[in-house]
This record gives sequence, C-alpha cells and structure tokens, in this order.
Amino acid sequence: MKPLFSLESLDYDNIENQLFLEEEEQMSPMFLQCVEISRWVVCGLTGFLTGLLAFFVNIVVEILSSYKYQTVKSYIDGFTEDGRLCASMMLWTMLNLAFVLAGALAVAFFEPIAAGSGIPQIKCYLNGVKIPHVVRLKTLVIKVFGVICSVVGGLAVGKEGPMIHSGAVVAAGISQGRTTSLKKDFRIFEYFRRDTEKRDFVSAGAAAGVSAAFGAPVGGVLFSLEEGASFWNQMLTWRMFFASMISTFTLNFFRSFRHGKGGELSNPGLINFGQFENGAYKLYEIPIFMCMGAVGGLLGAGFNFLNYWLTIFRIRYIHRSFLQVTEAALAAVVSITVPFMLIYWSDDCQTLGEEQAVEHALQMFCPDGEYNSFATAFLNTPESSIRSLFHRPPGSYNSLTLFFFTFVYFFLACWTYGLTVSAGVFIPSLLLGAAWGRLIGSLLANCGVSIWADPGKYALMGAAAQLGGIVRMTLSLTVIMVEATGNVTYGLPIMLVLMTAKIVGDYFGEGLYDIHIKLQSVPFLAWDAPATSHSLTAREVMSSPVTCFSRIERVGTIVDVLSDTASKHNGFPIVSEFITSEVFLRRSVSSTVAVFVERTRLNQRRLMLKDFRDAYPRFPPIQSIHVSQDERECTMDLTEFMNPTPYTVPQETSLPRVFKLFRALGLRHLVVVNNENRVVGLVTRKDLARYRLGKHGLEELYLAQT
Amino acid sequence: MKPLFSLESLDYDNIENQLFLEEEEQMSPMFLQCVEISRWVVCGLTGFLTGLLAFFVNIVVEILSSYKYQTVKSYIDGFTEDGRLCASMMLWTMLNLAFVLAGALAVAFFEPIAAGSGIPQIKCYLNGVKIPHVVRLKTLVIKVFGVICSVVGGLAVGKEGPMIHSGAVVAAGISQGRTTSLKKDFRIFEYFRRDTEKRDFVSAGAAAGVSAAFGAPVGGVLFSLEEGASFWNQMLTWRMFFASMISTFTLNFFRSFRHGKGGELSNPGLINFGQFENGAYKLYEIPIFMCMGAVGGLLGAGFNFLNYWLTIFRIRYIHRSFLQVTEAALAAVVSITVPFMLIYWSDDCQTLGEEQAVEHALQMFCPDGEYNSFATAFLNTPESSIRSLFHRPPGSYNSLTLFFFTFVYFFLACWTYGLTVSAGVFIPSLLLGAAWGRLIGSLLANCGVSIWADPGKYALMGAAAQLGGIVRMTLSLTVIMVEATGNVTYGLPIMLVLMTAKIVGDYFGEGLYDIHIKLQSVPFLAWDAPATSHSLTAREVMSSPVTCFSRIERVGTIVDVLSDTASKHNGFPIVSEFITSEVFLRRSVSSTVAVFVERTRLNQRRLMLKDFRDAYPRFPPIQSIHVSQDERECTMDLTEFMNPTPYTVPQETSLPRVFKLFRALGLRHLVVVNNENRVVGLVTRKDLARYRLGKHGLEELYLAQT
Repeated sequence: MKPLFSLESLDYDNIENQLFLEEEEQMSPMFLQCVEISRWVVCGLTGFLTGLLAFFVNIVVEILSSYKYQTVKSYIDGFTEDGRLCASMMLWTMLNLAFVLAGALAVAFFEPIAAGSGIPQIKCYLNGVKIPHVVRLKTLVIKVFGVICSVVGGLAVGKEGPMIHSGAVVAAGISQGRTTSLKKDFRIFEYFRRDTEKRDFVSAGAAAGVSAAFGAPVGGVLFSLEEGASFWNQMLTWRMFFASMISTFTLNFFRSFRHGKGGELSNPGLINFGQFENGAYKLYEIPIFMCMGAVGGLLGAGFNFLNYWLTIFRIRYIHRSFLQVTEAALAAVVSITVPFMLIYWSDDCQTLGEEQAVEHALQMFCPDGEYNSFATAFLNTPESSIRSLFHRPPGSYNSLTLFFFTFVYFFLACWTYGLTVSAGVFIPSLLLGAAWGRLIGSLLANCGVSIWADPGKYALMGAAAQLGGIVRMTLSLTVIMVEATGNVTYGLPIMLVLMTAKIVGDYFGEGLYDIHIKLQSVPFLAWDAPATSHSLTAREVMSSPVTCFSRIERVGTIVDVLSDTASKHNGFPIVSEFITSEVFLRRSVSSTVAVFVERTRLNQRRLMLKDFRDAYPRFPPIQSIHVSQDERECTMDLTEFMNPTPYTVPQETSLPRVFKLFRALGLRHLVVVNNENRVVGLVTRKDLARYRLGKHGLEELYLAQT
Repeated sequence: MKPLFSLESLDYDNIENQLFLEEEEQMSPMFLQCVEISRWVVCGLTGFLTGLLAFFVNIVVEILSSYKYQTVKSYIDGFTEDGRLCASMMLWTMLNLAFVLAGALAVAFFEPIAAGSGIPQIKCYLNGVKIPHVVRLKTLVIKVFGVICSVVGGLAVGKEGPMIHSGAVVAAGISQGRTTSLKKDFRIFEYFRRDTEKRDFVSAGAAAGVSAAFGAPVGGVLFSLEEGASFWNQMLTWRMFFASMISTFTLNFFRSFRHGKGGELSNPGLINFGQFENGAYKLYEIPIFMCMGAVGGLLGAGFNFLNYWLTIFRIRYIHRSFLQVTEAALAAVVSITVPFMLIYWSDDCQTLGEEQAVEHALQMFCPDGEYNSFATAFLNTPESSIRSLFHRPPGSYNSLTLFFFTFVYFFLACWTYGLTVSAGVFIPSLLLGAAWGRLIGSLLANCGVSIWADPGKYALMGAAAQLGGIVRMTLSLTVIMVEATGNVTYGLPIMLVLMTAKIVGDYFGEGLYDIHIKLQSVPFLAWDAPATSHSLTAREVMSSPVTCFSRIERVGTIVDVLSDTASKHNGFPIVSEFITSEVFLRRSVSSTVAVFVERTRLNQRRLMLKDFRDAYPRFPPIQSIHVSQDERECTMDLTEFMNPTPYTVPQETSLPRVFKLFRALGLRHLVVVNNENRVVGLVTRKDLARYRLGKHGLEELYLAQT
C-alpha cells in the first residue's frame, strides 16, 4: 500500500558542526541558565494552556449537550401523550446530524490530519517520524471544534484522546514561539527551534494532555515515556511531570469555579471515575478479574480486526472528502436510530429515586416517576454513562439492557473509529467494557458465585479489560486507571487485567493504534530489534550505494544530487582525504546552498546556526532556489556544516547492536564503514523498521519512504 | 582520599562474541519464551519475598517495641510516686543500648557494607558501579537484623531505606539462582548470570523495596528509573511495576491478617501517612508551602554539611570496628538521655481524651488523665510520631515542644546517619520536617495569617521539604509522597515544595547520598555531560596507551598482562591484521585462560558461554591459575571470545557525544580510534565521571579506580 503522505524522520542527535561549536563557545553560563529556565516556562505554559483548553472543551460540550437535551426533553415530554414521539426523534436526529456534519466538514475539507484521536500520530512523532501538519495550530483549532461537534453530536466517541493531541500541539506551538498557520513569529524561544528540543516539548505536551483528560499526571508522564522516549532523561521527565501537574491543576481550578465551589480541587480530569468507597476485593476474585481480562482481550482483538477491514475499505473506496462526510453523517443517524429502536423494544424502567440524582434521566415510554435506563445509558454523554455503570447500586440495570447495549455499542464504536471526525476511542472502549463488566458482575451476583458482588467493581475491571484489549497499553494505562479511580488498592487487579488482555489480544493481532500506524506504512521503530536477529549484519540491512560529497564540492553537483528525486536519503556522508565519513542533512543542505548563493551574490556575512533555526522546520526545497550557471561552477566548503564525528558502525555489526545504537541515541542516519573506515552504506529508520518477528521467523515489511 | 573498597564497573552491553552467536543459533523460539516467562517469575518472586521481608521486619519491630514499652511503662507507673523515676530511665537506657549494641556489633564485625540505608550503594549499582558484597545474602541477613535492632533501640532512624537495599538483594539472589554466602547453587535461572540481566533484576528489586516501604508501587518504579536506568526499556519497566505491585500487595495482605481484618487491604506500606480527609488547600497557601520548601532546602543543606564533616571525621579517626561500635553505643545513650532531660524540663501535658487513642502515651511527670506529648513524640516509633504530627487535631502540640524537638532531633538524626548500624534517613527526615512544619502551621494559625490552617497539612509539606532538602530526589519522591498520602490533590504543592527545596539546597551543596558516594570516590556518571564541554574531545579524555592483544596471542603474554597490577583496565582491544579493534574483558579473560589451560591439559571439550556464566560474577583471578612454562609458550586463539564489532568513536569526538553513547548503552569501555581505524585509546567510566561543572567551569575530580 502506498503511504498516505510523505514522511520524514526527526533527528534527535545534535549535529555538532563548526557553527554549533562556535555558537557554544559564545554561550555564557548565564545564557545556559536562561535556556533552562525557558524550558520550565514553556512546560508550565503548555500545562496551563492544555488545562485551559480541556476546560474550554469540557464547558462547551456541557453547555451544548445540556441545551440539546433540554430541547429534546421538552419535546418528548410534550408529545409523549400524543404518541407523536416520532417527531421528537426526528428533531433529535436532526440536531445530532447537524453537529456531526459541521465537525466532519471541518475535518474533511480543512485539515484531514485532525481526524481520529491523534494518538497514533503523536506516537509516530515521539517515535521520531514526522507526519506533516500534525503539530500545527490549524490542526488544533479543527481538532477542538471537531471533537466538540462529534461528542455533542452523539457519536460513540470521547474527547480524551484528542486532548493528548491538543496538548502536543500546544507544546510544539509555544516552544517554537511562532505559528505557521497564522504566519506569526513572536521571536521568543528561538533556541528551541530544532528537532531535539521540539520533540522533548511535544512529549511534555502529550503528558499534559493525558493529565488533563484523566486527571492522571503520573499516568501522563508514563504515557509519554511508554509511547515515545527511548532515552530516559531525568530533567526532561521532571519537566513533563511539571507540565502534567500544572495542566490537571488548571483544569481542576477552573472547574471548581464553574461548579460554584471555588478553590475546592476535586475534579482533576475531564473524566473522573468517581470514588470507589468500598475499595476492597477478595483474593479469589482475582482469577475472575483475569478471566474478564481475557474476554477484554478477545473482544478487543475482534474490535481491532473489524476496524482493520473497515479502514482498508475506507482507504480504497472512501477517499473523497464528500464521501467521508456522508459516511460520518450516516454514522450519526445510525447512532441515534438504532438505540431508539432498542429503547422502543426494551422495557427496562427504573424508579427515579430521590436519594440518587440520575443525570439526564429520560422517561421515554416508562410510566411516570420512572425512567428508561437503556435510554439513559445510550443518550447521555459517554462519561456520565461510565460513571453510572461504575457507581449505581446493584440492580440499577437490567441484564438484558446491558447485553444489548454492549452488542450495539460494540459495532457503533468500531464503525465510528476512523470516521472523518475528531474523536477518541478511549471513552467508547471504557463504556463498552463497563457495560459488559457490569453485566458479568450482575450475573455473578445472581448466580451466587460471589457472596458480595458489587457490580460497579466488575464494571471497572471490564472497562480496563476492554480498553487494554483495544489499545494494548500496559504500564501507563494501569497508572491512568488507578489515578482516575483515585484508589491504589485496585492497582494490582487492574494491572493483572490489563496484562491478561494484552497477552490474549496480542495472540490475535496488534493494538488498534499500531494497526493504524502500520496501515499508513510508517517506519515505526519497536523497542528492541527482533530476537534471534544477531546473525543479520549491518551489511545486509544498510542501503547502498551512498551518494557522498567531498569537503569542497561544486555547487552544481550538490544541486543536482539534491534535485534528484530518486535519491532516497536526506543525509550525505562527506568523504575527505582522511577517509573519515561525515553526515549532514538534505534539509539543512538546501538552506546552506540557498544562503551560499545569496552570500556569493551579495558578498555578505557568514552563515550562522541561527539561519538554520529561522528556517526550521520547513527548509526551502532545492527546487525553489534559482542557481545560475556561473554559481553552479563555484565550489563550496562544506566543512563548517558537517558533523565531523558521526556515529559509525563496522559492516559486520549485528542488527540488534545497530538497532540499539539507533534507538537509544535517536539517530536519523547511521554510517556503515568497512575495515579501512570507508563508507559502504547508510542505515536509516526504514532499514531497521522493516524487520519484524513474524510467525515464521524474521519478516520484511513494506514501508513508506523517509 | 583513597577508595574504601575496590570497585568494578558493570557492563550493560552484550558481548556478541562467537560463543554468544553460537548459543543464540541454537535457541528455539520456545526457549526464548521460557526465558521471558522466567523473567516475570523472578520479578514476581522478588516482589513476593520483598513484601514478606517487609512484613517480617515490621512485625518483629512491632513486637519488640511493644514489649520494651510495656516493660518500661510498668516500671515508670510503679515508681513515679516513689520519685525513683531515675531507675526506670536507667532500665530504658540499658534496653536501648543492648539492642543498638547487638545491631552495631553485627554490622561492624560481620558485614560493614550493611551499615546505613544502602541507598547510595544501590544508586551506584544501578549507575553501573559494582560495590563488593552489596547484593549478597549475608548482607541481607545482617541488614535485616541490624535495622530491627536500631529501630527498636530507639535511634533516630527508619526501616524504610534498608528495605530498598533488601529488595535489591532479594532480586539479585533469586535471579542468579544461587547464593555465594551459603555456597548453594540451585541451577535455575542460569541464563540470567550476567551483568545486563542482573542489573535489570536489581532495579526491579529496588522498586519492590520502595513499594513495600511506602506502599508506593509507581513511586518505586520511578525511583529505580530516576536513580538508575538510563535506557528506558518498556518491558523492563513493566516488570519492575509488576514486582512493585506484588510486593505492596503481599505486605498488605499479610498485615491485614495480622490486624485481624483478613483480606481488607488498607496498609499498603511500612509507613502510611494516613488519609488526609479534608484534602484541600487554597491558592494563596502555595507561596507559603514554597517558602517552607526553601526552609527545608536550607535545613537540608545544613544537615548535609554537618554530616559531611562528621563522615570525614569518621573516615579519619573512627575506622576500627570497636570504635565504631562504641560510637553507636554512645549515640544510643545520648538518643535517650537528652530527650529525658527535655521531658523533665518541659511541661507540655495533654488531656488523654477518650475519642482519640494515642499510641503509647506516656504520663511521665504529668497529672493523672494526661500524658506528656514531648515524651510521646520522642519515645514512640518515628512512624507513629509522624502520623500523629500529621493528623492530631490543632492544639495537640505545644509550639515550644515542637521547637525543642526539631532542634534536638536535627542533631540526633544528623549524628545517627553514618553510624555503623543499618538504618535509613527517610523517616528521621520526614519526622524532623513534620515537626517544624507543624510548628509553622500552629504559628500561622495563631497569627491569624491563614483563616483555616490545618497544622497537619503544614506538617506534611514540612516533611516533604525536609526530606527533599536532604536527599534531593524529585520526581520519584513526589510520587512516593502522593501515594503514601493516598491523595492526588496534594500532588502539585508537594512537587513545588520538593522543587524549591532542591533548588535552594543545590545552591549550597549536594544531596546526602551524593555526598556519601563522592566521599567513597565512586565514579558515578551523571545524566549528561557537563554543559559547554563540547570543546573537550575523546583524545583528551581517553586513557592511553592501551595494551592490545593480537588475535592469536601467546598465553605467557596474556598471563603477564593480566598479572600486572599497574595495568589500569579490564578490557583489552584485540588488533588484527585488518586494523579493526575488538574488546574483551579481563574477568572473562582469566576464565578463558583458566579453561584454556585445563583444555590443553586434558584435551577436552570446547569452551562455552555457560562456563563464563558458571563463573559469574567472581571470575578466578589470574594469580590463582597455575600456568607452567610449557603452557606459557602455547598460543591461544582469542577470536571466539572477542566482540568483533565494539562501539568505537573517532578521537575528535566531543565529550558530550562520548558521554551520551557511553551512558545510553551502558558501556564499560569505549574504544577510541584514529582516522586509519587504529586503536589510540580507551574511554572508561572513570574518564568520563571525573569531569564536573564546578563554579569555575569544568573541574576534574579524583576518583577510585575501576
């Protein structure tokens, strides 16, 4: 399959060329301290703005949902006796459709990358693959607008995944001190305009996003580490934690005022699972939980399998924008009509007790003083449905209701993920799992297997199992779940459930995010090289032959090489008379040539590192630079731009060694040399990412060019 | 200063020699799966045994303390009216002295490495420096015995730090499947007998220890990562988390039975800060908290400074075992008499209300129905003193009591850390901080600065500030404190307090653990190379000349080189006709020679990787191998033992690049080559660790040999 967009690798390695060393020499300790303080300021601001953004999304969704609910409810209440419920349904459907259409149109026509949860894209970014537009301001705006529309529009989606993407965009924007979308440069934080720094900030932003979404600052840090960082850096982690803390605090602080309890910080995240008061379980319940984990793994694998085929179908047939919008509209209509039909058939009426307020209770076809629990589960925001599944007293839900709900919601959620709307899969997964978890809990209580079966506890485990089965995250998910429940006693069972779900799920296939990453054939690097690949050497893995430059090179040659679209790499070894090899990058090269040309024309100042930073991250393509015939004949000294001591490996180095070096240092190119220290090849991300351990030993994959 | 013991570096890099590749080829996927499962089993067992050990320590301390208290109390109650309180005091002193003497004797004469908290040693181990005996079973036994004695003996110590060391020993022991102390080899987990695997397990063990000590599984994982790992490995972290979870669960589970509430899991750690019910603070309190952080940083710096000079004094004058025991005995006597004098002077009597049980309340010189709060604070276990400082209602403590307590306890704790007893500094620091924190809280409430000042909250912040000021841990400490309080709302202020304490403290000097590491001149690698060291190159950093071998080498030459104690390194490049360079290690070499000699004598089987694993980690010294004159003339082919593709760097590589490579990959030696790929030098841990950024730019330190 062809890649959907052009990809580039990020470079996490400092290019220590002459310009860099010159700049460093002029740095005072004072300046370095300022830089360090700026890093903290950027992280603090990121946290603050992410929290604020989460608050904004939350409040807008709340207001719009409530408005929608009031409108529809007044209609239903007015028409129930007339039997013209159908009209209310139509109204409701139209309202939902309008919201979803607005969101889908914005995404499809303005910024397609804002579709989905954005987590796969952020995973790729943290892994070192740059996906175009992923951290632009425009993407953020569309994403926020889109997610509000899809949540209010009643799709089976959550607003938590997009928060992670939003946090990442906020971090990237602030750290660069400018926005390409608005073409505005604030001339601040210019020092951070390079891949290394930007990626660090993006990981802090993602952590802040998780933190705001789930009220889980530690979980956020672990999420970023689990998904991204390979090299553990203490100061970076500490800054990530700072951003996360500020983010959850900001959200909490503003929400406390919104709820009229200024300063009482009890709503740390967008979703709050609520307190599990009787936080206790018996030892013999652990096997039951683990079985639930297995169920979650199975259901998750099924979900992913269906979604995989659906995505293939979409890539083949639904690639035009208007088709995508149509599909989203269809999903919106189905998401409301199918539940309605079920509500019509179901007769799960619950007494509307006074001691327990039920959010947005719907009477529907029930007698007065009662409400339809099916309708309430379906037509509420997913967050409040999850909370009721966790905390309503035993007997609040009919088993049949839960079964049908699970069944229908499974397909709805599966269909919805991948639609051209901004939406996350976390909340639907949790809701799905909570439903069947509570079902299992109720059944166990009925069967008398467990003497004391609190269905809410089983709902929690089911939610963990289902989410784990779909996304296959482990460590960070455990911590997120523990932080969201605010109860450390459930830590062990949640961990065991997630492990079981992952093991069972992995037997059948990959996690949802990995599937989507693979479908876009992104060269995603795993944690380690495949086991038993020591017999494979750099010689077999590397790309060769490599185009090399010499230290003094004709401008014409450089321009020709760079213009040659068939040349695969962005880095070119520079081979000098000393047989050493050095690398520098195409993107910088074109800038270099550009400025060189300018310089020869104007006989002007020397090139400085600042010029590269100003151009970052969109260095001008070589085609945009006009080079005259005279200039082509000039020679250029590349010495000051090259990295004189790149990391190299001998060609007999085994794949795991190459992999470890590449991954631990976040390299973009690795030069392979022979015994005489001559360049024989270049290893790039793609060369390493294509080897996977399949069922029949090592396998090679097709991957997009980087 | 001379190092106190010989140090060796751990090697985190796989030596991919021929033997390794041959072994790998024979590995079936089945075997690899078994290895992976074994890793989980080892981590699970480590967690279980660490939890069990914590339970054991806890219960023994509880029983002995309670016995001691009952004995003394019955005496005091009997004699108060007679005015012969003095006799009871004597009895109490004798009891304490006996316990402390027993502990000090065991440590001083059987295993001196078991002294202190063990955290600096574990930090070194995780950093890659092996300190002899640090993970031996004997050390564990002495440590556990010693810590029980010092806690029951009433020293100003805690049992939490030693738990971390204990967890690490447990992990090392289980993963190696044998014990050197008992000379027993269980022939299990033989695959794990190498530095890489052992260090992974030790980090999991340390995490399990933290988890058991504070009921903080996530904090434990972060502790191990913060202190040790440089390369973030997802699976390893996940296993560490598993061990931590099991550990806290085990402790919790057994304690629930001990407390007669089987299965109710509410005591996750050795120390439990208790629930902070009204977990709220106002925004304007945050600056107050941060000021407290600054106070903590100052006090911590003072503490560390005093302890530094005390340690220097000890190294110079108190190095004989019997002197060390005498000092410990003196400390025991002072720790009880000074408080007594203060109790005698003080008249802080509190009513013994019925609504609140005061653990181990002492009437002393107070009227009937009241108890002396000073005596209770001093003569209780530190853990319960901390809990009362956190949770007793306002007015339970006289401000003067708190002031004198802080003053006296500061010096006591400072003296105690570094005594030849097993003891931790975590709990004394927390107690100290809680005391002055509560003092500040009470003063604020009296001054009317804060309308609603809960002194317990300030005690918590003070505890965090003081501990942060002494040990200077940041991320992991925040998470540990949050987990121990079980309240995520305090996360942000605790983090800010710890940050302030660290910044203020770092201005005056290093953290306590780092001071002790430096005093033993351990080549401890920081996270990054010093800033602005790019102008320093490998050529200036490396050691040269390097003793090299050729592929086919005379046995005599090898033996001579290995026997030469002046030769500084443990790795020797092998230079072949192809000008490449390869490294292998002295420790393995001597084994190689040993087996080679044996082989030539008996004409026997080939050497296998298993032979090295069997010898690990104490390879026979070359002196122990008798090599005859004939054998000296034989030649040996080193090809199969050498690593054919070591990581190398050109000699112009900057220090930060070398550092990053060394640290990220956990190397032990890095070969420096010239342009012709010839070996010109070797960079070891020591070469990198000696550069620090001081106040006047780069500084070189004296370091122990590795």
